This record gives sequence, structure tokens and C-alpha cells, in this order.
Amino acid sequence: MFEEITKPTLVVNGRRARENIRRVARKAKSSGVVFRPHFKTHQSALVGGWFREEGVGAITVSSVFMAQYFAEHGWTDILIAFPLNIREFAHVQELATKVKIHVLVENEEAARFLSTSSTVPLSVWLEVDTNYHRSGVWWEDHEKFLRLAEIVQKNTNLCLEGVLTHAGHSYRTKGPQEIARVWHETVDAMTQVKERLAENGCSELAISVGDTPTASVVDDYRGVDEVRPGNMVYYDLMQLQSGSCSVDDIACVLACPVVSKHPERGELVLYGGAVHLSKEQLHLGETNKPIYGKLGLFEGLGWGNLITDTYVSSLSQEHGLVKGSSEIIEKIQVGDLMAVFPVHSCLVANLVKEMVVV
Amino acid sequence: MFEEITKPTLVVNGRRARENIRRVARKAKSSGVVFRPHFKTHQSALVGGWFREEGVGAITVSSVFMAQYFAEHGWTDILIAFPLNIREFAHVQELATKVKIHVLVENEEAARFLSTSSTVPLSVWLEVDTNYHRSGVWWEDHEKFLRLAEIVQKNTNLCLEGVLTHAGHSYRTKGPQEIARVWHETVDAMTQVKERLAENGCSELAISVGDTPTASVVDDYRGVDEVRPGNMVYYDLMQLQSGSCSVDDIACVLACPVVSKHPERGELVLYGGAVHLSKEQLHLGETNKPIYGKLGLFEGLGWGNLITDTYVSSLSQEHGLVKGSSEIIEKIQVGDLMAVFPVHSCLVANLVKEMVVV
Repeated sequence: MFEEITKPTLVVNGRRARENIRRVARKAKSSGVVFRPHFKTHQSALVGGWFREEGVGAITVSSVFMAQYFAEHGWTDILIAFPLNIREFAHVQELATKVKIHVLVENEEAARFLSTSSTVPLSVWLEVDTNYHRSGVWWEDHEKFLRLAEIVQKNTNLCLEGVLTHAGHSYRTKGPQEIARVWHETVDAMTQVKERLAENGCSELAISVGDTPTASVVDDYRGVDEVRPGNMVYYDLMQLQSGSCSVDDIACVLACPVVSKHPERGELVLYGGAVHLSKEQLHLGETNKPIYGKLGLFEGLGWGNLITDTYVSSLSQEHGLVKGSSEIIEKIQVGDLMAVFPVHSCLVANLVKEMVVV
Repeated sequence: MFEEITKPTLVVNGRRARENIRRVARKAKSSGVVFRPHFKTHQSALVGGWFREEGVGAITVSSVFMAQYFAEHGWTDILIAFPLNIREFAHVQELATKVKIHVLVENEEAARFLSTSSTVPLSVWLEVDTNYHRSGVWWEDHEKFLRLAEIVQKNTNLCLEGVLTHAGHSYRTKGPQEIARVWHETVDAMTQVKERLAENGCSELAISVGDTPTASVVDDYRGVDEVRPGNMVYYDLMQLQSGSCSVDDIACVLACPVVSKHPERGELVLYGGAVHLSKEQLHLGETNKPIYGKLGLFEGLGWGNLITDTYVSSLSQEHGLVKGSSEIIEKIQVGDLMAVFPVHSCLVANLVKEMVVV
């Protein structure tokens, strides 16, 4: 099967990916919480089917385009986890005539637009900033939540479902303890947002949280109503570094043909560049130099462990430069295929449409 | 026309792009040198047509896929500027039965493979490393060039056309003087490679060089036979920083809808993330913080100058976070469209397939 790979190709270990899905699905079930996975990681109807087999019926996406794609593949309950883009509202409404669509609101301009324009039923969530500082209303700004809720509730097509956050600052943590602390702080903040809304007449609201580090490290999801991790289907070097997964949980690599060897520089050149791996970088070890991936060898129907002291040191559009030990440079031949562990699997899966499942 | 844009869209200033093309085409003509532009920047049949109008007949691409695409759009002389990937050789040969295909060789494994496998005519170039240290044979390693030439010439289907380099280290320079120095050093090195090959029986070889900084800064291309710049059709912030262009030469921006304002943080949130802008970064000014783009406003049928102190400070998959002055944050409304000047236009054009020409 690897013999047929001629260019950069995403190789997915189906067994590992299903185990990763099953682990979160079981924790959600035992906690009595809805598992609404984020499908931006894989963007694949095939991989979506593996979630369905674990009982998943509701999903998260990050664009209207992805919502359209998964609606076409039979998903009927889709949350677009991105601040409502009013320029795309016609497409959102059109889709909402076919499947259940959830949108996020986090500012008054969009809320007023939504309230005056919605002619079909839509589920609405108020987005909360619980310390990531990307989008969302700061969790202590209770007045703003009340104003947004009031605006949304003026239109009876709109159903205010709850409050939602992405605690993306969990990606910047060091180790499981810090990740668990982010979980507890997030749940506390969200509970306060919900309670203040309930005190002011918005009862029965749900709490939705979603990020892979906390969903991986925490076993008991009680305190929220819904979890939305996505990256956990594949994991990657970023998650490995944060302590969310082990190397044996990583369920995808990019297969890259070796096109050149430069033993005098201790380097290999791969067909696999920024248009395949993205320029997402990590700083590993003591050096402050960025790396764009680590390397493994294909073995049997899968791939082996990380090769020590071997990494993608620079990327141009199609070229990937690998620095490696003299031992590994000697072993690898031009025309071989190497396994690149991605820094950020979501971006690689977005870029590389060729996929092989092993 | 901007009213119809609902999501991240590449906006191209057709007049500027044509002027950029014309400038290089004229310099090549007056120097008696072939202009074989790199089409990886735009990957667009439409933009390719603008080059044809300036008399371009031969092109450069960086993948077999791009070669296939442009062959389908009527281009008949295509150089694949990437070390021969022997795993894709069947596709290369198939294409070479239809149009003239040029390949690069820079190691003995690929050369031997080519020599024993080629059954259709192919043009071959020896790739030279003139100081960029990505791919190519180090320019002083004359013995290796002779060995490669010998291997290639064993197969009469293969026509050894010349020696080729990408002086990518010109991107790391500071200002036009350093760029001009790279040009002269490159031409000197390539001339020596060519002369040593000629002394050993390989006469009539051509010299091909290609990078946007040198092609932009140097006016007289004499000393080489062919230039292959690509980025010069659009330019970008990276080229602006290196001194290859002025801000008025930049011929594309990414139009991004504003989805949120956070005046208390001095920030805007754009629909435009790593899957649109790539994570290519620059370090501008005194801070060591990375930036992922600078901002402008759409005006009339185009866009204005760079807004001072305003830049894309972080990117996630779909979100772009903009830091800006209080003045600009106040002026911009949710639902507006902003113009993002890309750090690296090639990667943005690769990611964003929606394009509008103004």
C-alpha cells in the first residue's frame, strides 16, 4: 500500500483514531454529557463515520462550507463554532432549512443583525471568553451577556441554547496538572455566566466547552452539558508536548518521498513543504529554533516511534529539509518514504486531501 | 464587487500584476535572456494568460500536478523546478509525451534511475547549490557535476540542457545592495560550473537562475540564459521588507470579513486564519513578536496603504486576530471587509482558491 504513494499523503491509523474517539465518547457517556466533536480536524466524511459508530449524532465545524459538506453527508445537527459572519448569513439560513444549525453570537452588531434578519429557526449560543482572548465576551461581563440574550430573544425563530467557550489557552500549558486546572477554572467561569443569566430570566441554558487538552486529561466531564474536542481523533506533536497524549495515540503522519540526501550537511530533502505541513512550528528542547515536524519510519502497515535528533528544520513551498543523525541519513535512500509527525494535525489534514487509512 | 465577498477571498490588482510582469519581461528581452516565470505563485490559468500577453512561452512549476494543470491550459514548455521525485516518474513521462518537460537532477540515485528508465524525450538540468543549502549540488563539487552529466548522457532520450539554481538566500538579505551582491555571486558560481563542464566535453549548456529579489533589483540579466522569478507577479510583505518592491507594487491582498471587535483589548477578529493566510511570519520593527500580515482598507476598486501600527498578531485555523490603534478599531465595524497584505503571497494563493480581479 505504501508502494503506491507517490506524493505527500496523509496516512491515518484507523485503529488508533477509533480508540481516541472511543475514549472520549465513553467519558462523555459516563459523565452524562453530549459529545459534539469538532470535525475541522479531519474534514472527512469517512472519519466522520467512525464517530457515528461511537454514537455521535451532533457535530461542530468551523466554517459554513464545512457545515454544508457534512450536511450533504447526512449530519443533521451542526454547530458552526465561529463568531457569526453576517456576510454569509444567506448561506447559513439556506442550510438551516435542511438541518439543525447552531450559531455563535458574541457582539451586539451580529446579535442585532441576527435578530432582525432571521426568518428560519436557528439555535444560538453566546460565546464566552474564559481566558483565551480570541473571540467571545469576557466571562465577567454579565451585562453584555444579558444584553445579547435580550436581543436574541426578540426573534422567536431564534432559540437561545446556552453558553459556549473554547478554552484554547489549554494549548499553552505545560503538563496534565495545568491542563486540569484550566478545565476547572473554565467550568467555574461558565457556571457563573450561566447562573447570572438564570437569575435574570434565562433559565435552562446549557454549557458547552471544547478543547482537546482538557477533554483528554480530565476523566469526569460533569459540570458541563457538552464537550467539543476535535484534534483528539489524530493528536500531534503539539498535543504530545502539552501532555494531552502519548506518542502511541498519534493517529496520523504525512508520508513524504525522499528526493535528496546531503550527508555532508546531515540533511535529507523531502517532497513535503509548507503547502503540505503548514508552517506551524514548535520549539523543542533547549534550542530556540523552530521545528516543523519530527520523523519516523514506516514499518509493516504502520510507522515506528519518533527518531531521536531528527526533525524538519525548514520548509519552503514544496521542499522539507530534515536534519538527522549520520546513522539515519545513511540508512535512508532517495525514493524512500518517510513518516512526518505533524506539529498540528488539523492544518495538515486541511492541506493534504490525499489520505490512506491503515 | 466587494459587496459580494462573503469569506476570505484573494483580491488581485490586475493592472499592478501586469506591470510587474511587464517590468521583468522587458528587462529579460533587453538582456537577451529567456523569461521562464515560476507559476507556483499564482497557480492560475487566468494569471498565466497575462504572462502570455507579454510574450512568455516557457514556464516553471514546482510539482507534477501543476505541470499537468498548465499543460491542460495550453502551456507546452514546462520546467518542474524540484529535485526529480522518482516515485512520480510515470506521471512525468506520461506528461512528456504531450508537452516539453524539463526535470532537475542533483543526486546520483535519481540520475541513475532517470538514465535507466527514460523512454520518452526529457530535458534535464543539473541543480546547483549556490549558497542556499536546500537542494542542489554544491557549486564547487565539479566532480559530482561531471558524474551526473555522464550518467544522464548515457540515455539518448535525455537532453542535458544546462545548469540551474534557485538563489533563495536572496530572501534573507537586507536591501537592494545585498540582493545585487547575491546576483553577482550566483552568476559567477554558475559560470564556473558551466565552464568546468565545458572543459570536460559538455558544451553549449545554458545557465538558469530564478528568484524574485535578484530579478527585481538587477536590471541587466546578461551572464545567464534564463531567469525564473515567480513571486514578482504579486509581491508581498516579505519582498517589501527585503527591498525587492515598493508597497505600490504589491498586487494582491486577502479580503477578510470582520466578525468581532474588542476595543478594550485593541483588537479585531477577522474571518481569515491559518487555512487562508498560512502561518508564514515576519518579525517587523523592534519587537521580536511574529506578525502574520498587515492591514489596509478597501477604497473604490482597490485598497489603500498599510495602516500604521496595525497587524495580524495571531492566527488559529479560521480566526485572525488583529491588533490596531484605537482610531482604526473605532472606525471598523463588524461586517466590514479588511484587506490583509500577505507575508508570503505564494502560500496564500495556494490556500485561497476564491479570487477576484480588480
